[in-house]
Amino acid sequence: MSSDADKRPLHHSEVAKHADKDSLWVIVNGNAYDLTEFAPEHPGGMGILLKYAGKDATEPIHPPGTLEQYLPKDKHLGPVDLSGLEIVAKEETQEEKDRKKRAEEKPPMDECLSLYDFEAVAKSVLPVGAWAYYSSGADDEITMRENRNAYQRIWFRPRILRDVTTIDFSSTILGHKTSLPIYITATALGKLGHPEGEKNLTWAAHEQGVIQMIPTLASCSFDEIVDAAKPGQVQFMQLYVNKDREITRKIVQHAEKRGIKGLFITVDAPQLGRREKDMRQKFADEGSNVQRTQGESVDKTQGAARAISSFIDPGLSWKDIPWFKSITKMPIILKGVQCWEDAVLAAEQGLAGVVLSNHGGRQLDFARSGIEILEEVMRELRKRDLLKNGFEVYIDGGVRRAGDVLKAIALGAKAVGIGHAYSAYGHEGVIKAIQILKDEMEMNMRLIGAPTIQDVTPEMIDTSGLSNRLVDGASDYLMRANYEPLAGVGNGLGAQPRLISKETKASL
Amino acid sequence: MSSDADKRPLHHSEVAKHADKDSLWVIVNGNAYDLTEFAPEHPGGMGILLKYAGKDATEPIHPPGTLEQYLPKDKHLGPVDLSGLEIVAKEETQEEKDRKKRAEEKPPMDECLSLYDFEAVAKSVLPVGAWAYYSSGADDEITMRENRNAYQRIWFRPRILRDVTTIDFSSTILGHKTSLPIYITATALGKLGHPEGEKNLTWAAHEQGVIQMIPTLASCSFDEIVDAAKPGQVQFMQLYVNKDREITRKIVQHAEKRGIKGLFITVDAPQLGRREKDMRQKFADEGSNVQRTQGESVDKTQGAARAISSFIDPGLSWKDIPWFKSITKMPIILKGVQCWEDAVLAAEQGLAGVVLSNHGGRQLDFARSGIEILEEVMRELRKRDLLKNGFEVYIDGGVRRAGDVLKAIALGAKAVGIGHAYSAYGHEGVIKAIQILKDEMEMNMRLIGAPTIQDVTPEMIDTSGLSNRLVDGASDYLMRANYEPLAGVGNGLGAQPRLISKETKASL
Amino acid sequence: MSSDADKRPLHHSEVAKHADKDSLWVIVNGNAYDLTEFAPEHPGGMGILLKYAGKDATEPIHPPGTLEQYLPKDKHLGPVDLSGLEIVAKEETQEEKDRKKRAEEKPPMDECLSLYDFEAVAKSVLPVGAWAYYSSGADDEITMRENRNAYQRIWFRPRILRDVTTIDFSSTILGHKTSLPIYITATALGKLGHPEGEKNLTWAAHEQGVIQMIPTLASCSFDEIVDAAKPGQVQFMQLYVNKDREITRKIVQHAEKRGIKGLFITVDAPQLGRREKDMRQKFADEGSNVQRTQGESVDKTQGAARAISSFIDPGLSWKDIPWFKSITKMPIILKGVQCWEDAVLAAEQGLAGVVLSNHGGRQLDFARSGIEILEEVMRELRKRDLLKNGFEVYIDGGVRRAGDVLKAIALGAKAVGIGHAYSAYGHEGVIKAIQILKDEMEMNMRLIGAPTIQDVTPEMIDTSGLSNRLVDGASDYLMRANYEPLAGVGNGLGAQPRLISKETKASL
Amino acid sequence: MSSDADKRPLHHSEVAKHADKDSLWVIVNGNAYDLTEFAPEHPGGMGILLKYAGKDATEPIHPPGTLEQYLPKDKHLGPVDLSGLEIVAKEETQEEKDRKKRAEEKPPMDECLSLYDFEAVAKSVLPVGAWAYYSSGADDEITMRENRNAYQRIWFRPRILRDVTTIDFSSTILGHKTSLPIYITATALGKLGHPEGEKNLTWAAHEQGVIQMIPTLASCSFDEIVDAAKPGQVQFMQLYVNKDREITRKIVQHAEKRGIKGLFITVDAPQLGRREKDMRQKFADEGSNVQRTQGESVDKTQGAARAISSFIDPGLSWKDIPWFKSITKMPIILKGVQCWEDAVLAAEQGLAGVVLSNHGGRQLDFARSGIEILEEVMRELRKRDLLKNGFEVYIDGGVRRAGDVLKAIALGAKAVGIGHAYSAYGHEGVIKAIQILKDEMEMNMRLIGAPTIQDVTPEMIDTSGLSNRLVDGASDYLMRANYEPLAGVGNGLGAQPRLISKETKASL
Repeated sequence: MSSDADKRPLHHSEVAKHADKDSLWVIVNGNAYDLTEFAPEHPGGMGILLKYAGKDATEPIHPPGTLEQYLPKDKHLGPVDLSGLEIVAKEETQEEKDRKKRAEEKPPMDECLSLYDFEAVAKSVLPVGAWAYYSSGADDEITMRENRNAYQRIWFRPRILRDVTTIDFSSTILGHKTSLPIYITATALGKLGHPEGEKNLTWAAHEQGVIQMIPTLASCSFDEIVDAAKPGQVQFMQLYVNKDREITRKIVQHAEKRGIKGLFITVDAPQLGRREKDMRQKFADEGSNVQRTQGESVDKTQGAARAISSFIDPGLSWKDIPWFKSITKMPIILKGVQCWEDAVLAAEQGLAGVVLSNHGGRQLDFARSGIEILEEVMRELRKRDLLKNGFEVYIDGGVRRAGDVLKAIALGAKAVGIGHAYSAYGHEGVIKAIQILKDEMEMNMRLIGAPTIQDVTPEMIDTSGLSNRLVDGASDYLMRANYEPLAGVGNGLGAQPRLISKETKASL
Repeated sequence: MSSDADKRPLHHSEVAKHADKDSLWVIVNGNAYDLTEFAPEHPGGMGILLKYAGKDATEPIHPPGTLEQYLPKDKHLGPVDLSGLEIVAKEETQEEKDRKKRAEEKPPMDECLSLYDFEAVAKSVLPVGAWAYYSSGADDEITMRENRNAYQRIWFRPRILRDVTTIDFSSTILGHKTSLPIYITATALGKLGHPEGEKNLTWAAHEQGVIQMIPTLASCSFDEIVDAAKPGQVQFMQLYVNKDREITRKIVQHAEKRGIKGLFITVDAPQLGRREKDMRQKFADEGSNVQRTQGESVDKTQGAARAISSFIDPGLSWKDIPWFKSITKMPIILKGVQCWEDAVLAAEQGLAGVVLSNHGGRQLDFARSGIEILEEVMRELRKRDLLKNGFEVYIDGGVRRAGDVLKAIALGAKAVGIGHAYSAYGHEGVIKAIQILKDEMEMNMRLIGAPTIQDVTPEMIDTSGLSNRLVDGASDYLMRANYEPLAGVGNGLGAQPRLISKETKASL
Repeated sequence: MSSDADKRPLHHSEVAKHADKDSLWVIVNGNAYDLTEFAPEHPGGMGILLKYAGKDATEPIHPPGTLEQYLPKDKHLGPVDLSGLEIVAKEETQEEKDRKKRAEEKPPMDECLSLYDFEAVAKSVLPVGAWAYYSSGADDEITMRENRNAYQRIWFRPRILRDVTTIDFSSTILGHKTSLPIYITATALGKLGHPEGEKNLTWAAHEQGVIQMIPTLASCSFDEIVDAAKPGQVQFMQLYVNKDREITRKIVQHAEKRGIKGLFITVDAPQLGRREKDMRQKFADEGSNVQRTQGESVDKTQGAARAISSFIDPGLSWKDIPWFKSITKMPIILKGVQCWEDAVLAAEQGLAGVVLSNHGGRQLDFARSGIEILEEVMRELRKRDLLKNGFEVYIDGGVRRAGDVLKAIALGAKAVGIGHAYSAYGHEGVIKAIQILKDEMEMNMRLIGAPTIQDVTPEMIDTSGLSNRLVDGASDYLMRANYEPLAGVGNGLGAQPRLISKETKASL
Repeated sequence: MSSDADKRPLHHSEVAKHADKDSLWVIVNGNAYDLTEFAPEHPGGMGILLKYAGKDATEPIHPPGTLEQYLPKDKHLGPVDLSGLEIVAKEETQEEKDRKKRAEEKPPMDECLSLYDFEAVAKSVLPVGAWAYYSSGADDEITMRENRNAYQRIWFRPRILRDVTTIDFSSTILGHKTSLPIYITATALGKLGHPEGEKNLTWAAHEQGVIQMIPTLASCSFDEIVDAAKPGQVQFMQLYVNKDREITRKIVQHAEKRGIKGLFITVDAPQLGRREKDMRQKFADEGSNVQRTQGESVDKTQGAARAISSFIDPGLSWKDIPWFKSITKMPIILKGVQCWEDAVLAAEQGLAGVVLSNHGGRQLDFARSGIEILEEVMRELRKRDLLKNGFEVYIDGGVRRAGDVLKAIALGAKAVGIGHAYSAYGHEGVIKAIQILKDEMEMNMRLIGAPTIQDVTPEMIDTSGLSNRLVDGASDYLMRANYEPLAGVGNGLGAQPRLISKETKASL
């Protein structure tokens, strides 16, 4: 950064001259950057960059430091002299105004009775792009929905007349105490939802006695998040492995030095998945409008996923595991295992555990759910006696109720990772969400007759229908409607059959 | 109560001074009560209490006597002198006006052709809070719906050309005659739906020759309900076991003295379940409004379930069974058994029977339905020869048609418990509902070729799909819609694709 | 009838005096009848009769001759002198006006491409009561829908490269030639849909070379229908067995004399089923209005099903079979067999065949579909070698496509019965509907590679999912909606979440 | 054609005299034709022909050359002298105007993120008749939807930690290289969607390195399509076999001479299927209007399918296979095999391969999907060692995602045929669609851990639910609604129960 300091401040009028494809500069947080070479691979397409070319492009969508981190040093043009810059009020759409009104009047947090409520509020009040990023899954979101549905194919076999006066749902993860068998799993770009980003999770994790996993793609910097922890607070780290192993070595060893207690290496994302809702939103917002009015034709589809994931190493393989073990003493866990064969391999390699995960349905559509895989994984690990050295199995994805956590525990999971969707109320929202889970947990453990986590046994669930995956399809698929009504007769469902126009029929 | 009589009447203006958190008095039915200590654990939250603090809080939601029963004696402040009190007309919402109009114009009872109709009428005309209380199930109401769905996975194998001129569906329960193999099961707070509360059930039970089970949480007092019975009318009692066993002993022995013929101990509710629709309604009505306008922050979620269920003993266990047998000669039945292992235990303990029940889907979501459990329970009891001493098995939950009753009988149940949903027409409605069931029963027994209950055999049903539980989810879940349409194109379902606004897309 | 002739004509003003419960006369087709005793058991309730008491009650809903046939002779009051009677124009509802307009403008018949189209037109243009009668099924109509659904669980395994230049789908039923393996099964009250009633079916059957089964409850008289047949045209008869066997003997022997070629005894209707849509319609039309405005309370529910079916003998049993064989030489077929055990009994009794049928889903809800039963029936009959004497198996219910017919044939059925739903175009509609089936038949036989009915073999279908009955429930059940949205947030489906009123939430 | 040249030009006023059933001439592309004899069998019915009788009937629906090809030579009346012809502006419906506006403003192609988007755009902007033709399936479109659904019952079992830096999805078909294992399958009438018709596919196939199969029923002539190919570009040919084998011999040998590399004989269409949506559209457009206003009664249903398919030989059988082998050296593949028995026969006959296909669900409804059949076919071929001579198996139908292609490959398919739905953007749209598939392919192969096509193994998919076919029915079937609400009460779903009119109830 010292080399940057040498540069004399650019005047904003100079930046303004670089406003097209051939030379494309932008100002972010008072610094100028040359994006000419980067623009063609910008995840959001070049259109949006051209819109801000030569102007201030400070946007909440990128965590501060993103450009510093990912743009080569020689493209950092240093601070900008903004004197004389006229601030142009950004035009606000009616939709955005409405959303802000909803955000202002959002329900008091205490009205949230379940995690669904937090989700509904988030959907209602988060900026459209933030919601699109958080909520979108891969392709047709079949796996995203399956993650939820799979839990709903497991039923309880509650036992009665057991003394459930005192309920204790505390447990451990990698030997560290947790107040209930969940952890806050790694999710990216926390500042999209709240200005404090991942620090909300750190504060809430401490307050509620659970463990936070710090994501590689956090909005806050790694050290910010570690600094936000209270003394003695346990944190884990999620790692995307960089093509440049030296960077990875530095990150890992820095983490260990800062006291991180577990290294969760993501193995289900050699390339980041296509999330079309997210991509669509970007077009809807800006891209296509630019395109429409200027006749510009930028191939946005091609570049998006590839650009975002460009630093992640698709060459990562089992051969790298010994190297990881050589650079850190932290327990190593593979995050994203999706069949028993790989769980067995992980245990045989002497790793500390695996997370059965499909990345929240955001990577490969039609990957099975973690809870379904859990059954086969536990069976095969037990068969090979691979659990004896404390090998732990976690799962994530689709959890919304404490009952889900109990089902996973009954099947043999050590803990369950919980993701986002509670960002609309800052860290208090996170605290509240965990409290709700604890309330549900106490209730459900009473009702199944299990006073402690150890009492939650396989006999308490009925998994006979677990692999009965049913893709009911979303209700809005193109091809659901079939019967083409006779003109003037109706299809037997509508109230006013005669009003169905020919156009309607066509669009049905 | 005599000690109360000594107190001199308070003037209402005195009560009015105790109108905040630090001193919170209310007037109910002309008596004052000090709720200062109780307020933080009020099931409905403190907000609603503050609204009525220092004022008259007589509300139909609590059965008369509730405060007397549950509030410590020293908080009973005695009668209030209401002289000079100005009656302020309570503002009525448009919704409430509409509901009352619907109630006035409700369809003549004879238009009700099935139990669904009674349900639809109740939903339309009952006070919002009453309907919310009666209709809500635990969590996502998966079990509540499953209770109904499970019956719909059993099909008939009717036999033909059997003489079905005379149909006799009378049977016995614990040796007592019933005109058909059902009983009116215990459901709480009957006065929410009708001023006569549970007495409607008593009268109708007598008129129709069926047996009523008196609930612990009735709106009417136990003695009122017993007094409403005609000479010779059989009644059972449902029992929530109190932490203070002396109270329980008194209740049980009083019941036996009053002629109760069976003691049904509830074992599926060490804590009362979370019923979010019910909780939501309370917020919608009052809580959140207070909160919004006064910026007050009361944690209502935490306290609700716990406060209501505070007297129920979560420590109740198999060890208590001998004690129950020692204090009463009434046959003892466990209500809420949910797997064969516990049914076997109950039979081995020499109890009179079990009710396979998940509490109408109001306790543990994802508990299986009684009708599904019935199959495994009968198989295991038969295998161990545990039916020989007259051990009887009942089920409840989800019954809406006489065909459901027949399915349960065919599987081996002795009788089926029927719950509420017919309160909008008082005791005549209950009579009518039972008549409908009898009509359906006669018809269905004719059509399957079984002139008597004994002729209803396992061969007459096809249960091959019984455990094929399918959670189709409610139609309004957050995540059903997937395809995010292109701007201006539509998703192939809507009639006017170009009118879909960006906001709509976001909210989809 | 000669005794009637002796009576002197009553003047209509005399009839008008008998206009209440105590003396209730009506005029039908110019004759007066005393309904005082009959009124309390009138299927449509007493309300509607009171409306017409003392007046002309000629209504298309009852086939001419109904009163003559079912009312005791002494209640026939003879012809009425109508001189001076003022014709009061009957008030017509807007709904009825709209319907008539739709009927006038109904699509040209040739636009009907499938049987669904005929159904849609009928629904649109038939009088509300007629549609309600034709379309309603028992209870929740689960079986009615299952009849259709079951066919949709059978898939084809078509064979290729077979010479299908010439397709011949002719076959025989009881040795009589039919142009395709279907017959027109018995359905009641044909005049509700068209003034020519069942004669339309007779004419069309002849024109298309198929066989008609004459129903006991036809709108036209038996002889009318037989007279409508062309020389050599084969007809069968469906029989409801009367409690008075002499009446039955007369009917059967008269039929045989008139040339009827097969006697189909209905065995699935000892009592006629509850069809609530049908019952509801009656209330909606008239009953409840009378009731509402006059405060009258008639128990219509009780009497309806029972009164209609009062002449049918619920005592009919296997013991009666020899008697039937003694009174006729016609082949005897049992219509309404619903499990293999009874099909085996029928074959063992030396009967000519069985119809696997649940009465179109109009009798016992949750009876399985004929096509599902067909598989077990054929297996058990073959196992016992009971097909060797020409025992034939038919099915009916749920057929809408020629593909359905082929599936039944492949499973071993000899022919398939087709019911109504094509009444809106008179006999031309029936002809057209059969032509459509033939078109589909030719097409489908070509496409599965079977040039003749004999080539349609079990290997051509995949029935692996046949018993996978799924009750998806109708889309309008009371309890489908679950997620109770936060005020002002929405449930993620609606476009304008803030507009959901509290009332809406309650009614959801 | 030389004989036509001898005729002197007709004046358009002469043609105008032949404007009724008895003499029906039309002008197409400046030539006159006598359709008097053909009219009764015109697929679109005679009504539409009468509308254009004596006038110019040049319409985009028929590929140029259709009349020349199918109408006997003596009905070709030669060129028309159009001098003095007044051009009458064709009246345009509002629907058509709206569609054209949508077409003008259609989204920029780059906004299409998936094949669904191309489908949605096509539906929105194509002429109604074109969309109806392209999108319609046989009967109830159960098979058409099943083709898609079946893929959604196969799930992935991804492997992790494999080096997926380089992804190579190239493969071969019949020994010819393809850039990914798909080919563009034959679909008819390409000009309905775009004026360049099938040439768009040729150009795109070359650009993207995939193989095109030329359809018999192309809009462009065979030679046009072959001429559009670049040197070295591989093309296959799809063949409907003519009753006149000489015509077929000429076509096949001409194709071989022009360099076609594979002959795909369609065996699933001895007669073209009934596609009711398509048929309906024709009525909606014109037919029924003519009929309504003129009282004309033309039986359009009868003739449609038969007329179109009249040249196809329904007598084609296994006996013809040797003859095909005798007239060409091209590899012969049967397209439309639908069970393992026929796949085995094909391999035993020494053919080059089979396409498991149900013709896109456009022929026999309830034919199973290709992907389901693939499993049994591969098993039986392997069992008989019939794959050893390079016998290849392809499938088509229902593919929308690269994941679908991978599932087929994992099950043993050599390649997958992709059909239309991307016509709204000309050849660039086709290119874009293939690029999207390649993007998805690269992503998905990374995510399942398979760097090359050879690494895609059966262990990577879970087909346990593959044959769990579920016909959920279209959402607009006639009989979905069941609960008939009480007047004034509602069914529990609607927001305003009191507003449901009687008519609505009837139409529900």
